[in-house]
Amino acid sequence: MTDPFMQAAIEEAKKGLAEGGIPIGSVLVIDGKIVGRGHNQRVQQGSAILHAEMHCLEQAGRLSPADYKKATLYSTLSPCDMCSGTALLYGIPTIVVGENKTFQGPEDYVRSRGVKLTILQDAECIQLMEDFIASSPELWYEDIGKE
Amino acid sequence: MTDPFMQAAIEEAKKGLAEGGIPIGSVLVIDGKIVGRGHNQRVQQGSAILHAEMHCLEQAGRLSPADYKKATLYSTLSPCDMCSGTALLYGIPTIVVGENKTFQGPEDYVRSRGVKLTILQDAECIQLMEDFIASSPELWYEDIGKE
Repeated sequence: MTDPFMQAAIEEAKKGLAEGGIPIGSVLVIDGKIVGRGHNQRVQQGSAILHAEMHCLEQAGRLSPADYKKATLYSTLSPCDMCSGTALLYGIPTIVVGENKTFQGPEDYVRSRGVKLTILQDAECIQLMEDFIASSPELWYEDIGKE
Repeated sequence: MTDPFMQAAIEEAKKGLAEGGIPIGSVLVIDGKIVGRGHNQRVQQGSAILHAEMHCLEQAGRLSPADYKKATLYSTLSPCDMCSGTALLYGIPTIVVGENKTFQGPEDYVRSRGVKLTILQDAECIQLMEDFIASSPELWYEDIGKE
């Protein structure tokens, strides 16, 4: 059975896919409650910075530094340099990741900065990305800045 | 005489200040031309993620991976974990920083990832931030996730 918060992140990823976007989703949880949800907005908003985690944090709005310190960030995919850096900026102590098979962010560095990072290696998350990368490689490379 | 691109970033910072916002500005330069400009949008847009560099990259729009590889990012202030991570995601090879006296991002790490990072220690950039931090410490702490 999937973690209910990861399930909510997967629902976000599927929303993104249904919109013609990149199927990565994220939720932010504080005190056992989802306070922000988001999914990649590269296609939908023509955005260069709204990865799922960024969209989620933006949707959560301006939180106090203390709020972030007790938050958990869920993402269907291993957070990239940008999204990892954002978690570090705000001192989010815990990150739960759907999978890191199709893409791996700077996990060792994030852990070295004191973050607890857990990889679920969820089959549904992997399938979403494998299908997407196979069908839209150029869009995917653009999203991760890869030539 | 200030670098004309840093001067453009300072103009962005001043725009932000005039709007009641946090006075940090940024421009993105490719082939000697400014392709994006931005300033911190925490106050103006109620944004948790639109630091100056993020706003600048978003205003530049969806660029190709190859474009980022020849870009220079200018910022009036040393880029934080989020903004540094974004430069790393896209492989931006050069960052020019107005000052790192009032705040210092993960400069050593950024350099260890191959980025050329130059600090100008510009007096006007320092003054803008010193005055702002003295007048609005809580807003500043929120912007950098500091309790």
